[in-house]
Amino acid sequence: MVLAVEWLDQPNRMIRLIDQTRLPDELTYLDITTVDALVDAIATLAVRGAPALGAVGALGVVVAMLQGEAKGWDSAELDTQVDRIRDARPTAVNLAWGVDRVRPVMAYGVEAVLVAALRVVEEDSAANRELSRLGADWILRQTGREKVRVVTHCNTGALATTAWGTAYGIIHELHDRGRLDMVYADETRPLLQGARLTSWELTQDGINHVVQVDGAASSTILRGLVDVAIIGADRITANGDTANKVGSVALALACQRAGIPFVVAAPSSTIDLDTATGDLIVIEERDSTEVTSFGGRHTAPADAVGFNPAFDVTPHDLISAVVTEHGVVEPGTTPHPQLLAQIAG
Amino acid sequence: MVLAVEWLDQPNRMIRLIDQTRLPDELTYLDITTVDALVDAIATLAVRGAPALGAVGALGVVVAMLQGEAKGWDSAELDTQVDRIRDARPTAVNLAWGVDRVRPVMAYGVEAVLVAALRVVEEDSAANRELSRLGADWILRQTGREKVRVVTHCNTGALATTAWGTAYGIIHELHDRGRLDMVYADETRPLLQGARLTSWELTQDGINHVVQVDGAASSTILRGLVDVAIIGADRITANGDTANKVGSVALALACQRAGIPFVVAAPSSTIDLDTATGDLIVIEERDSTEVTSFGGRHTAPADAVGFNPAFDVTPHDLISAVVTEHGVVEPGTTPHPQLLAQIAG
Repeated sequence: MVLAVEWLDQPNRMIRLIDQTRLPDELTYLDITTVDALVDAIATLAVRGAPALGAVGALGVVVAMLQGEAKGWDSAELDTQVDRIRDARPTAVNLAWGVDRVRPVMAYGVEAVLVAALRVVEEDSAANRELSRLGADWILRQTGREKVRVVTHCNTGALATTAWGTAYGIIHELHDRGRLDMVYADETRPLLQGARLTSWELTQDGINHVVQVDGAASSTILRGLVDVAIIGADRITANGDTANKVGSVALALACQRAGIPFVVAAPSSTIDLDTATGDLIVIEERDSTEVTSFGGRHTAPADAVGFNPAFDVTPHDLISAVVTEHGVVEPGTTPHPQLLAQIAG
Repeated sequence: MVLAVEWLDQPNRMIRLIDQTRLPDELTYLDITTVDALVDAIATLAVRGAPALGAVGALGVVVAMLQGEAKGWDSAELDTQVDRIRDARPTAVNLAWGVDRVRPVMAYGVEAVLVAALRVVEEDSAANRELSRLGADWILRQTGREKVRVVTHCNTGALATTAWGTAYGIIHELHDRGRLDMVYADETRPLLQGARLTSWELTQDGINHVVQVDGAASSTILRGLVDVAIIGADRITANGDTANKVGSVALALACQRAGIPFVVAAPSSTIDLDTATGDLIVIEERDSTEVTSFGGRHTAPADAVGFNPAFDVTPHDLISAVVTEHGVVEPGTTPHPQLLAQIAG
């Protein structure tokens, strides 16, 4: 089984991450023993995916405390370093959530924080399994099909989580039940998480799929080639508006026109009841060169400027179902300002 | 001025094409004196863009006749070779249209065909200038803005036409009138015509722009960052349904939701009154590896399969305006089975 995020006690006490920037060419690991290394791994997307960020947020506090002990940080310095982890990316709520879950335990020492952080990891894994069952049930009931054809965007598999996956977990669950026909995986520019990571996981899991450019998703849906779109989420606000990898809302608009369900799958930790609507979500803008180059080679003229929002927001009325480990709500049919409270953490 | 397609009498009688696969890194040319070379240039997209394909279709008949004279082809063989040009790509109507415009002249000899083909080239250039004026007028009236912000997809500039451009021509016209604020250019995967070609032309013309991944287009529109989307077309059916580069319909769906105009700009030769609706358009499917690799390097696992439709169809009700050199019609508000007859060639 692929583990994107793992805690090791040997040879050092450290977080071991799969370096996702190297996939699918190479399966290599990063061993994280400092805050600098962790913040860098988060910023470069060596580790990414909202639930995985929750796990590294929690485990990152352990790393910071161990480094603080070695370096003799005072509590103000330790707080500053923990905040650096918490704020390493702005859009995914899970990163801050993971830090905040274990922060109150810091007063009880590093071993207590480690126990709490490992519980975050285990709970995420269990949540993924449960939401995958609930999501598969809902989709099979809703579509009424013997085997479903799915389109998905970005990567939401084991690499994006602590294990199993969210949207990918539902796909995997459908596959295990013999109820999956095939998957259209968007390549997900600029960093190609779909082509590099989702296709890699689908290949590992023996799941029938094709990779398509992101621009093809809308017509794949409108032409009737798929029965459902399933995506993950980086933040779901109280009314159901959902931030996810840029390009997601294109699928939602096409699903609405085609009359097929658009499903958001995420652990309950992704729900941010403190944010009322999607308008209030800060959208991370990443470096221009991610758009204007590829593999170190310019794709645009040397002086062209790239506009690079990493996420978009899908309005709740375009979302057929939000699935967490606590249940399924249908924002499109039952609008309510605190709708998501029912399935929040 | 950039000329994507040019007829030369010296040093040989030939079509000179900019090799668009090499841009923006290098401005190099292909000199075409055989049908094989022309079909190859069309298939590899060294020359692309519906109006440019119309021009090479017409000029290609001259190339075939000259080669036939040299090789001693009989008229059956010549017909076969002309058909190879005509059928080199299925979706753009202009290629067949260009061939068919000059084919009746073949009985009068190659010089007569050359005169007819050069007239096709000149007419396209004039049509682009006129439709650009009409389109700019319509957009300024419709948006009521002093300066407009535009999103566009793929390349529709001088490189895609014989000169000036279609959707790009409107952008250029707005710029020349001092009424353009800026352009969001979709990179247009898999072959990056937007990043490689549109951004190159915008840079040459000194037009303020950014390049974005195709997945960003929907949210750029929904966030209110642009006032209008303008695209070209490869085939417009009698009711206004429009085939264009894959990804175009995503912009149309977002424009509808955002309440901003979605404009299709093309010479009248792009209108295919013999095809009633978009369902009947053959969508070219290109090679899998265009999706699963980039610059010779795999982007997906080595055995992953790419799904690679080159075009999509935007239904007429999502199109605010179709602009040709003969005028503007509004398919979204005035549905009619032969609506486009008003502005067809």
